[in-house]
Amino acid sequence: MSGFFLPRTMSGRASLLPAPPWFYSGEMLTIEYEAAPGAVASLLPAPLAPVADRPDAVAAIWAEWQCCGASGEELLDPVRAQYKECLLVVRCRHAGRDWSRCVFIWVDSDASLVRGHFQGYPKKLGEIWMTRPALIGRAGPRLARGGRFGATVAAGSRRLMEAEFTIRGQAESAGFVNAHPMLHHRLMPRIEADGEDSLDELVSAASSDVELGPAFIGDAELRVFPSPTEELETLAPRRVLGGFWRRVGFTFRGGRTIADGREG
Amino acid sequence: MSGFFLPRTMSGRASLLPAPPWFYSGEMLTIEYEAAPGAVASLLPAPLAPVADRPDAVAAIWAEWQCCGASGEELLDPVRAQYKECLLVVRCRHAGRDWSRCVFIWVDSDASLVRGHFQGYPKKLGEIWMTRPALIGRAGPRLARGGRFGATVAAGSRRLMEAEFTIRGQAESAGFVNAHPMLHHRLMPRIEADGEDSLDELVSAASSDVELGPAFIGDAELRVFPSPTEELETLAPRRVLGGFWRRVGFTFRGGRTIADGREG
Amino acid sequence: MSGFFLPRTMSGRASLLPAPPWFYSGEMLTIEYEAAPGAVASLLPAPLAPVADRPDAVAAIWAEWQCCGASGEELLDPVRAQYKECLLVVRCRHAGRDWSRCVFIWVDSDASLVRGHFQGYPKKLGEIWMTRPALIGRAGPRLARGGRFGATVAAGSRRLMEAEFTIRGQAESAGFVNAHPMLHHRLMPRIEADGEDSLDELVSAASSDVELGPAFIGDAELRVFPSPTEELETLAPRRVLGGFWRRVGFTFRGGRTIADGREG
Amino acid sequence: MSGFFLPRTMSGRASLLPAPPWFYSGEMLTIEYEAAPGAVASLLPAPLAPVADRPDAVAAIWAEWQCCGASGEELLDPVRAQYKECLLVVRCRHAGRDWSRCVFIWVDSDASLVRGHFQGYPKKLGEIWMTRPALIGRAGPRLARGGRFGATVAAGSRRLMEAEFTIRGQAESAGFVNAHPMLHHRLMPRIEADGEDSLDELVSAASSDVELGPAFIGDAELRVFPSPTEELETLAPRRVLGGFWRRVGFTFRGGRTIADGREG
Repeated sequence: MSGFFLPRTMSGRASLLPAPPWFYSGEMLTIEYEAAPGAVASLLPAPLAPVADRPDAVAAIWAEWQCCGASGEELLDPVRAQYKECLLVVRCRHAGRDWSRCVFIWVDSDASLVRGHFQGYPKKLGEIWMTRPALIGRAGPRLARGGRFGATVAAGSRRLMEAEFTIRGQAESAGFVNAHPMLHHRLMPRIEADGEDSLDELVSAASSDVELGPAFIGDAELRVFPSPTEELETLAPRRVLGGFWRRVGFTFRGGRTIADGREG
Repeated sequence: MSGFFLPRTMSGRASLLPAPPWFYSGEMLTIEYEAAPGAVASLLPAPLAPVADRPDAVAAIWAEWQCCGASGEELLDPVRAQYKECLLVVRCRHAGRDWSRCVFIWVDSDASLVRGHFQGYPKKLGEIWMTRPALIGRAGPRLARGGRFGATVAAGSRRLMEAEFTIRGQAESAGFVNAHPMLHHRLMPRIEADGEDSLDELVSAASSDVELGPAFIGDAELRVFPSPTEELETLAPRRVLGGFWRRVGFTFRGGRTIADGREG
Repeated sequence: MSGFFLPRTMSGRASLLPAPPWFYSGEMLTIEYEAAPGAVASLLPAPLAPVADRPDAVAAIWAEWQCCGASGEELLDPVRAQYKECLLVVRCRHAGRDWSRCVFIWVDSDASLVRGHFQGYPKKLGEIWMTRPALIGRAGPRLARGGRFGATVAAGSRRLMEAEFTIRGQAESAGFVNAHPMLHHRLMPRIEADGEDSLDELVSAASSDVELGPAFIGDAELRVFPSPTEELETLAPRRVLGGFWRRVGFTFRGGRTIADGREG
Repeated sequence: MSGFFLPRTMSGRASLLPAPPWFYSGEMLTIEYEAAPGAVASLLPAPLAPVADRPDAVAAIWAEWQCCGASGEELLDPVRAQYKECLLVVRCRHAGRDWSRCVFIWVDSDASLVRGHFQGYPKKLGEIWMTRPALIGRAGPRLARGGRFGATVAAGSRRLMEAEFTIRGQAESAGFVNAHPMLHHRLMPRIEADGEDSLDELVSAASSDVELGPAFIGDAELRVFPSPTEELETLAPRRVLGGFWRRVGFTFRGGRTIADGREG
């Protein structure tokens, strides 16, 4: 049977995902902050360790994407190409180097959800909104000093987080938390639901063909709201470090299996 | 009681709409075509008449907007500011001049729906998608020769229309069908449901503070699909005239009541 | 041109609504409570007055409906027939009698939204959920003592209200607040946006052919959350009076214009 | 780290799924038909074989569920408990016995999507509608001879299938295609995207604590529409065998790993 993902068929046409490469073009709003001491460490399973420098730093990221496979056909049927996401990224230490790691994430399409599960992102569905810059007219901020942006994420009929960002100027980079290759676990419990996993891999992935637009830096606020199905209060901001906005393009071609927990 | 629209309260805060001015910034894809002879005329109630020149011309338009009121607060809570729409615009003759007139339209927010009903647009809810241009990365067309865009609209779990557009170059304008002030009917049947209307007005409205980005012209296709609740087949394209893409900003400050049908 | 509502065409097929009668079958959860003294009165425009007995009583209602026109065709294409709503109903005094009046309401379909605007309900779009009773299996309450139900409403990516209800037993009725004919204003501001209305009617409407299932009475809780676009805190519960659950069927055939504010 | 599914945390509270048992109460509409000869066989990967008797039989099923974990807390926050799905089930032969197998399925919640991926259902997101029976009022069929039901499924802004069902009377069962334990593959491609799978299991699962309401049998129609991302035309009905409607309750407690393709 053919098809990169399920459902597999003779032709592979019904697969929820084409095989990589996957191309992305989009806009990212990043708000970096420090959580309570130990909050990040408590989300890192062994053998991952906190980083030495600013171990409680977190990046709250909103992104709006177009994404397509090698054929590019999704771009002409944009219900298949466009989605938004909101994610919380931390850093961790493993095998002698620093990594970025997504600990919570919400997206608004099924293709993005399962691309994420394939890559080890713990994606749930949510409703994500972020202000778009405007080139003309009065209904949008300019990409210039004073431009103000808002962003929200909701799931389960509840608002989970909201952010505001005001541009102060241009910057050399767009933050340090989400700046490393990603280190994720891919998990699938055994069908027996016996507490064991059928899939338990530590994997890494890095983007290729990265293209970066100008980075804008500014002041930011981030508010976190309670939900019985989330744990955002424990990762709530104690001190906001700054905000960034940038256009990004990249390609995902695959990652690398670092460890298979079933073989350990 | 205060509030521009319902629900009205002491403070007016709960009103689904703030009073104008309403500011818009967005992107528009326009596909102009000729429908079957007489198709446009059959959608014009008396005393509106078809225009003399190319009377069967139609513009199928997809637009993605940010919209806010005078306070601009919606821009920082973008679930309240962003929406998409797809509309079919024709021209008509009345009182010695030509007008544009929206005959069918779908939007994806309640604020936009009732702003439309206030303005005489016959808005329904739908699911609208249109390709966004990309500045970087491989997941989006450039605003340049060869850039390809797709657009779709669905309602009632059915796709109603889909379009493709390929840029050939820049143009002086973005079409002629949607180029006049709008001439619309505002209607509300009597609560007695007796075949009479409590509101039956002919109104006109024009945008102010219009800002236009560069216009791109190109080749276009438009496909129309059947639905038991729509009448798009009768307005289906016989000959596509061309396509256009442009960024637009404008302000809506109100319109003018031309005739009140209740006053005879 | 034909069609009960917009858009009007030669055939009338595209109208967002068929002409009444409209048939409804559904399930209603009602939570009655007392708001702060004067809270209800502050929502009543002159000449409506508070009722003498328990003037601050409010009914928070969740309902899940199937609704169709005379042809019944929507029932075979249920995306057109099914919707949910959440509304706050109060009572008022006018012309020597008591009336019910909806002051805030959220629904999840466009047909319901505009049926509401036609009837004077100040409908907005929202996301509404209510527990369904179960006849078999363990994933739902029974319609019997101890059966527990939840209900939520959200709009603008924010939860606005949530309720819980536990059946104590059967009852003769399902509350007193929503028990009168409805007295509503129908409003449409002038296109000039000059502070005047083109439509400003006081209308009444009552259901006909009402069929009532057994009523269940019980204990209830209701929580109200803040939103910048709503005014629910001012109508928040001070004391819950009780909860009710009942199946309801009825027909809407039209109402009566009581006063036209433009003629006053 | 705790949590049955991702994201795993210290408390496990954020997990998208609680550990089984999972309880279900719902309503199912089943339409059984024969597809083109060989159509079912072409969807069965080795070593699964077609069944000997009526090998081309397919069940198209619409279901509306409430689902909760052992705590039952989802039932009081019904956005977490309710969902709808539409699936195509076939039969296959393996290890000396007959099995049911879901080949295509759409659901409308993330919890259901990933419960499905855990169980080997190839779930995508879709928009599912099915007529509900009514006990009172004129806006719904009765569970009695002549009662008519409709059902639709859409994904990617396209209607994929629609069905109609008219009750003729009661029946002893609700069809034969979906009557066996399920035999599914669970799949996850390697992060290297190298054509190999990290998870490739053949698993079986059967419901427990099954409670069945009265089964209704009747006449049915089923229409299949084209989509570039689906393969329903190849499984389209040649001859409808019949339709069934029934309330169902059951518990999922886990399944059994039959074969691990990585060990083969």
